[in-house]
Amino acid sequence: MRRDKDKLKIIPFGGFNEIGKNLTAFEYKNEIVVIDCGLKFPDDEMLGIDVVIPDVSYLVKNADKVKGIFLTHGHEDHIGALPYVLRQLNVPVYGTRLTIGMVESKLKEHGLLSSVELRCVSAKDIVKLDNLSVEFIKTSHSIADSVAIAIHTPIGIVLHTGDFKIDFTPIDGCAADLARFAELGKQGVTVMLAESTNVERPGYTMSESTVGEAFQSIFLKAEGRIIVATFASNIHRIQQIFTAANKFGRKVAVSGRSMENIVGVALELGYLKAEEGMLIDIDELDKYPEDQIVIITTGSQGEPMSALSRMAASEHRKVNIIKGDMVIISASPIPGNEKLVSKVINQLFKKGAEVIYEALADVHVSGHACQEELKLMHTLVKPKFFIPVHGEYRHLKQHGELAMKLGMDEENIILADNGDVIEVTRDSIKKNGAVISGQVFVDGLGVGDVGNIVLRDRKHLSQDGILTVVVTIEKQTGKVVAGPDIISRGFVYVRESEDLIDEAKNQVRNVLKDCENKKIKEWATIKSSVKDVLRNFLYEKTKRNPMILPIIVEV
Amino acid sequence: MRRDKDKLKIIPFGGFNEIGKNLTAFEYKNEIVVIDCGLKFPDDEMLGIDVVIPDVSYLVKNADKVKGIFLTHGHEDHIGALPYVLRQLNVPVYGTRLTIGMVESKLKEHGLLSSVELRCVSAKDIVKLDNLSVEFIKTSHSIADSVAIAIHTPIGIVLHTGDFKIDFTPIDGCAADLARFAELGKQGVTVMLAESTNVERPGYTMSESTVGEAFQSIFLKAEGRIIVATFASNIHRIQQIFTAANKFGRKVAVSGRSMENIVGVALELGYLKAEEGMLIDIDELDKYPEDQIVIITTGSQGEPMSALSRMAASEHRKVNIIKGDMVIISASPIPGNEKLVSKVINQLFKKGAEVIYEALADVHVSGHACQEELKLMHTLVKPKFFIPVHGEYRHLKQHGELAMKLGMDEENIILADNGDVIEVTRDSIKKNGAVISGQVFVDGLGVGDVGNIVLRDRKHLSQDGILTVVVTIEKQTGKVVAGPDIISRGFVYVRESEDLIDEAKNQVRNVLKDCENKKIKEWATIKSSVKDVLRNFLYEKTKRNPMILPIIVEV
Repeated sequence: MRRDKDKLKIIPFGGFNEIGKNLTAFEYKNEIVVIDCGLKFPDDEMLGIDVVIPDVSYLVKNADKVKGIFLTHGHEDHIGALPYVLRQLNVPVYGTRLTIGMVESKLKEHGLLSSVELRCVSAKDIVKLDNLSVEFIKTSHSIADSVAIAIHTPIGIVLHTGDFKIDFTPIDGCAADLARFAELGKQGVTVMLAESTNVERPGYTMSESTVGEAFQSIFLKAEGRIIVATFASNIHRIQQIFTAANKFGRKVAVSGRSMENIVGVALELGYLKAEEGMLIDIDELDKYPEDQIVIITTGSQGEPMSALSRMAASEHRKVNIIKGDMVIISASPIPGNEKLVSKVINQLFKKGAEVIYEALADVHVSGHACQEELKLMHTLVKPKFFIPVHGEYRHLKQHGELAMKLGMDEENIILADNGDVIEVTRDSIKKNGAVISGQVFVDGLGVGDVGNIVLRDRKHLSQDGILTVVVTIEKQTGKVVAGPDIISRGFVYVRESEDLIDEAKNQVRNVLKDCENKKIKEWATIKSSVKDVLRNFLYEKTKRNPMILPIIVEV
Repeated sequence: MRRDKDKLKIIPFGGFNEIGKNLTAFEYKNEIVVIDCGLKFPDDEMLGIDVVIPDVSYLVKNADKVKGIFLTHGHEDHIGALPYVLRQLNVPVYGTRLTIGMVESKLKEHGLLSSVELRCVSAKDIVKLDNLSVEFIKTSHSIADSVAIAIHTPIGIVLHTGDFKIDFTPIDGCAADLARFAELGKQGVTVMLAESTNVERPGYTMSESTVGEAFQSIFLKAEGRIIVATFASNIHRIQQIFTAANKFGRKVAVSGRSMENIVGVALELGYLKAEEGMLIDIDELDKYPEDQIVIITTGSQGEPMSALSRMAASEHRKVNIIKGDMVIISASPIPGNEKLVSKVINQLFKKGAEVIYEALADVHVSGHACQEELKLMHTLVKPKFFIPVHGEYRHLKQHGELAMKLGMDEENIILADNGDVIEVTRDSIKKNGAVISGQVFVDGLGVGDVGNIVLRDRKHLSQDGILTVVVTIEKQTGKVVAGPDIISRGFVYVRESEDLIDEAKNQVRNVLKDCENKKIKEWATIKSSVKDVLRNFLYEKTKRNPMILPIIVEV
């Protein structure tokens, strides 16, 4: 009996069978610890949606139990939902200094800074709660100050790796705390949750410092300005650009809002170090010859409004691409962004710039562990049970298979879905039921007011447009006194399709006459007859299926 | 003077600064030879568009000069625009047997077969026209029966490589005719047009036969059914599946309309060879044990309506994925299709199938030449002038640079755009003006009736939906007698946003009252006031910008 109560519940609300919106809850008796609180960017099907966040109604309902949100690092897929979740669930937020710095600037934008309690921690710190205590362990990732999190619980140690890679020559000179992982492994880890992003890639992810070497050999050859686009959050990458710039006597200017923000925060907190006088304002560019300039910018994903895209399109206020510029795109296109990135590359080439990107040189490395690094982590930690996290089903499944190759039993591995309740004791693990979970769409100021019906309509509208039919009917007689008028948007060029529209009007007139003859007066019936007839008519004539909106005005 | 008349004009209408819709015209005096007639699939921005074809109005205007369309191979980006172009330009179509076979089945679908003259040729054939003669040269590609085309002209030889790779161990046992390329090179080639698809990839593309080896080692391990998805047109790939199936005593069934069509054509023409009794109907599957079955199917790009997607979603009439099935996706996702493919992989894994795809095994190779193969072609052909084709600007530019590395002068290389007129003599090449070119959108039955305004509207509708405002005004007095009514689609859940809509109606009422007071009677003015007020109001409240369609009914 006692045993049965000694249960830890692990409940993921995001990051399982999807990339992004990472959020997992660990519940023991009256305590809930939340790891990460991320957003996801919308799929192609989620038309008009800005971001997607996890549905945390379960946590809101159990708000008194939630002791805090513990962050592994400052990427959007780990912190991006905070402004929305904290509005419903005001709990302390724990993270390392840079992570908290990034959360601060995010909450400031949302006008939430004053109402949230942010608590800075360092690697090796332990936050003691009632039954649980939470330990932070240094890792390496494509953002500085990343940590894994170990939760010490009455059922043993639970380890969440967060996003990580094993980098033996990291830029901050301080590698992942492999010794601590080994130590925990020796003590005995009951369950490990480990990220699965690169589980399909054999071998090792290259060290971040190899990118610095690539930068230096490119800088050596550059005769004009150098423009480097990368993720604003990749502080180590930016540090390496600083280093190369300094080596070759170049000044550095920063462009793009998020780049300016994060570089500011990182300099202030000491995560970035720039030589005295090296950083210049973007307005000062023309004070220096071109071969003494480096510009660091956003836009490595080809985002249409980003600084690099604006430079490529001659729409940037300060920087115009000219022949002789060397542009380095220091990132991989995230799946779905290839065409955007390609467009920018083409524009840059056309303006005469030299463009260097991943296909041509080693100007980017991943921040995630490949198969051999994952094996190292599994081997050090030697968990009894394993839950692969952060990935689509294919990734979770293959991560499970990787664990089996290392000797783990299949029944000790849980492939879970968001909302699943995973019950863990010292010597058992199983799924037991599920709680509410899901995705909440953020569109403009609306959080959750756009759902599947609205999205279905947007999809329909996007494919063939809309046709509005307006008819005015006399209340007494049911006679048509004006119309039908047809207004279309996104369907056909009206001028070139006058005949089609005229014929469509005739079709509507016939339906209305028919309804009049049959003494049909229910608007709903008339409308649906109009809709059916028009739909069939238009499909036959055009093989298109616009949305049809019949409007009847009664006077 | 004589020299000046001895000019060949090369005019591309597609395939330059884009991937797809390949079509290039070669004009000498009163003769025009057209190479290829392809379509392009729409970009993400081209909402609702089915396919994109080149604007060939220049050729239509010069129809009497056009001697024929000469095809390099049967891929959609080389033959797909034929049904549309042949309607405007009825000229003979030349191609190798399989290519013509595929054109036939395409024209049949469009009801055009009887009205078009199709002429089968073989590699080494020469079609003699008046001043020009057109020679076909065997190449290797990811479809059988591909050729390069040499046009013998009074200004010398013009060579168009078509799509190609150098495969020393091709499946049909008949490698590209490198000797002929060398011979032409020795005679002297004035200008070469060569494809640029893989110009960013160093090294060599692996031989198609390596995929067969991968199949055999996978078949060896499979204990249940084997399902292979690949491009229907990749006859050599399909032949290798037949070979592996035969080796392991498995029957083969084919699923998916295009797969059935093309396999049928290829078997008939002898491009595919199946052992007696090996092919079975999909209805016969349950007559055989699972380990004696191979199913070849469409859907390697995750296309939602394809056979593989339907199997993965349990919507296929004949095949349901079960535990023990081995699914091989023998293709690379085309950029933009990654998420669709990933979705299918996840579904298949969830159903218990084992899934093998490019990330995990060598079950696909490209059909295009990498850098070393391109260098081989340049070195054999030694053209005086070079026009890189088939690629975005980045590819064309880098192909130009590859040629320069091999010793060609920069001024002998032309980076052209669709519509450019490139004038070539025996010892000069230059761009001289341009003709009408562009892209024509096909949407349902409409060819060219959807343009930028319609697409802009679809984009707008897709992002934030539409809001229709209907007001009835009395003609005499200008008084509002009914409405305003607001109907929205794709904007918000109306039920949850009643207050917002009510407030929006109030805003409209105020505008109308204001117009009435100011005696404004022009509908256009009233409408635009309503639009402005609503747009501002909604943006302030929701940070969204739906399309607003004010409708005023006068009674």
